[in-house]
Amino acid sequence: MNIPQSSFPRVVIIGGGFAGLAAAKGLEKQELQVVLIDKHNYHTFQPLLYQVATGGLEPDSIAFPLRKRFNDVENFYFRLANVLKINPEKNQLETSIGNLEYDELIIATGSTTNFFGNKNIQKYAMEMKSIPQSLNIRSLILENFEEALLTSNMDERNALMNFVIVGGGPTGVELAGALAEMKKGILPKDYPDLDIRQMQINLIQSSDCILKGMSAKASEKAEDFLIKLGVNIWKNLRVLDYDGKTVTTNSEDSFRAETVIWAAGVQGELVEGLATECVIERAARIKVDEFSKVINYKNIYAVGDIASMSSEKNPNGHPMMAQPAIQQGTLVAKNILAKLFNTKQKPFVYKDKGSMATIGRNKAVVDLPKWKFQGVFAWYVWMFVHLFSLIGFRNKAIVFLNWVYSYIRFDKETRLIIRSYKKHKKA
Amino acid sequence: MNIPQSSFPRVVIIGGGFAGLAAAKGLEKQELQVVLIDKHNYHTFQPLLYQVATGGLEPDSIAFPLRKRFNDVENFYFRLANVLKINPEKNQLETSIGNLEYDELIIATGSTTNFFGNKNIQKYAMEMKSIPQSLNIRSLILENFEEALLTSNMDERNALMNFVIVGGGPTGVELAGALAEMKKGILPKDYPDLDIRQMQINLIQSSDCILKGMSAKASEKAEDFLIKLGVNIWKNLRVLDYDGKTVTTNSEDSFRAETVIWAAGVQGELVEGLATECVIERAARIKVDEFSKVINYKNIYAVGDIASMSSEKNPNGHPMMAQPAIQQGTLVAKNILAKLFNTKQKPFVYKDKGSMATIGRNKAVVDLPKWKFQGVFAWYVWMFVHLFSLIGFRNKAIVFLNWVYSYIRFDKETRLIIRSYKKHKKA
Repeated sequence: MNIPQSSFPRVVIIGGGFAGLAAAKGLEKQELQVVLIDKHNYHTFQPLLYQVATGGLEPDSIAFPLRKRFNDVENFYFRLANVLKINPEKNQLETSIGNLEYDELIIATGSTTNFFGNKNIQKYAMEMKSIPQSLNIRSLILENFEEALLTSNMDERNALMNFVIVGGGPTGVELAGALAEMKKGILPKDYPDLDIRQMQINLIQSSDCILKGMSAKASEKAEDFLIKLGVNIWKNLRVLDYDGKTVTTNSEDSFRAETVIWAAGVQGELVEGLATECVIERAARIKVDEFSKVINYKNIYAVGDIASMSSEKNPNGHPMMAQPAIQQGTLVAKNILAKLFNTKQKPFVYKDKGSMATIGRNKAVVDLPKWKFQGVFAWYVWMFVHLFSLIGFRNKAIVFLNWVYSYIRFDKETRLIIRSYKKHKKA
Repeated sequence: MNIPQSSFPRVVIIGGGFAGLAAAKGLEKQELQVVLIDKHNYHTFQPLLYQVATGGLEPDSIAFPLRKRFNDVENFYFRLANVLKINPEKNQLETSIGNLEYDELIIATGSTTNFFGNKNIQKYAMEMKSIPQSLNIRSLILENFEEALLTSNMDERNALMNFVIVGGGPTGVELAGALAEMKKGILPKDYPDLDIRQMQINLIQSSDCILKGMSAKASEKAEDFLIKLGVNIWKNLRVLDYDGKTVTTNSEDSFRAETVIWAAGVQGELVEGLATECVIERAARIKVDEFSKVINYKNIYAVGDIASMSSEKNPNGHPMMAQPAIQQGTLVAKNILAKLFNTKQKPFVYKDKGSMATIGRNKAVVDLPKWKFQGVFAWYVWMFVHLFSLIGFRNKAIVFLNWVYSYIRFDKETRLIIRSYKKHKKA
């Protein structure tokens, strides 16, 4: 991997998402050598992927080059690689570009879509965890509409205009809302020869409310907003299968749809090599103590979505979201420094800053620890928080410009099929 | 293709580039049915492709959705399709989505890269005529640098950092300049563990000057600018072959390079079906009269790069650039209206508005019909003209913002490998 030997201890971080980035920031300008490994050369701001998928933002504005973030940091090395295996007994990583020894290892690989073992759904449904996947959804939506106006077969046309989103968490809700806004403002103008009323947006949730992690008020209000935007919400319905044509469920309801977006679950993106007792099979998460240290290892840490830090308050670990990831990443850096320089480590205490979701124009729900509100003001807060959290001035400015433009013009302009998804899929 | 029958004559336009778009604009709001067919659902602003390839602009900001441009026009139909064949005797097109009859046909298919029959070069060199191709170049450049820092083999590393651009026209010159700016301002910071002085940018031109179509002064000054930026200019050198490893030429000079960008020629993007006597084999262009009408056909026109309208002043037809395309597209629309509504047609007179090329920050060359100038002011003129020519307020604003940002920060931020080119190529 061509990383020079150094007299400083080497800390290797796998993953440049929220957790990995926070850890890397916390370790910069110290007497350390830091190596950050990621399979992409950029950080992805995942909370806005749904806007890329629905033509509201260009992908480049929610990505930030990892090298740029650290290019003024000494003793910092970035490597574009896939990590294949950890060899804890040798303190070594195997990667697609060679092996690397570490003194301290931070696993921040994040999460991937959880299909709960259903191979059909995995094969035919769309995921939305990365920029290329979001661009695939963008292409597919637009390609479906182009195809819909060619057919006179009503069943076929309906299937092309029928969107099924499985999972009523923030991803599913935000995507459903954004699709509903496309249906309202953009598609009728772009496809005057189609009757856009035939377009159906179905949001399927296995339990009895959407946005389960938020307050009852937020959930109710989000449901209300979505219904007003014309989204069909199916609660207490469980998707059993999808063969590329028809979604079958545990009730008599089935959906003939060309586009199914699976937002019903995530699981840790595991790396091979850790002892079985460290891994929670079901969620593919790594068990860590309150210092983010992987149990039974002395110099391996896990932070963010991949880590399960269970406590009395959070028996299943913290939610797989940006906030716990950032906070854990920041603390693990401090604790590694404390360990190396013999000062006192601190246990993790999750500071819940609240959560929020946007449904559409002037419609969002926000749960702060002491205040819960919905509507226009919540929408402004949502925008402000997301804009502020993006990395880089240029990205902030371009996202802001897009949002102002969309707001004034009721438009989303990046409805471009840069790479065909359908041809790609068939190839 | 599901285009309704209409009592109005049907004009079909193949291609939504500069020429096709101008023709479509000229035909809107008339007693006509207009069908625009393109293989992309967007118009590409080709003059800025090189900035996408070098991480200066996001692809979405130089593309504009074709449906949006015409979504308030009645009797206008867009279809995403490849045209396979023209059947002039039946007034019919064969396309990837079915057949379509036309009353009047405008061929505006533009041009494609001309490899002059060299299959090796076609296989191994990069082209830059479309957005996906430009994104491939962007990925390849960055992937090469990631790979270069992994190897200790100096030959390999040099090949990964050696860029050969074949063709000293505006495309080659602008790309060489943009690469040189990456070399100067961005790559040394992003890759501190590489000695960026090893990066070589070679611009190869078969004749004795670059920017052959421009004035001697522009050519000299552009050469001067490029040399100051560190570009190696090879004049009177002809590339004979490239096997993916080494570029061989008609002299003893050869280049070991992983990246060769072929900007040495374009040819018309022909559609099958026209009689042999209408086609100039060598350049793959269609012979048209001064009304843009294809010779020997009554209702078929060709405009832009694909059309060769030869005159005493332009024995080989007009240059394959935006200006003749736009002017021909605009006039052909008027002439078709004149024909259908029995008014007088006008012959085409090319109004040469001049030409320009940018080499880098504060460095451009401009030839106006009555005034030729180079340097900072030329650079401002270049930027203003290009910004003004982009379609859509949002695109203008985002490109402007990127340029201001780059100017102030000496940076180009979209250096993202969204899709790997190397893996894709191998797949």
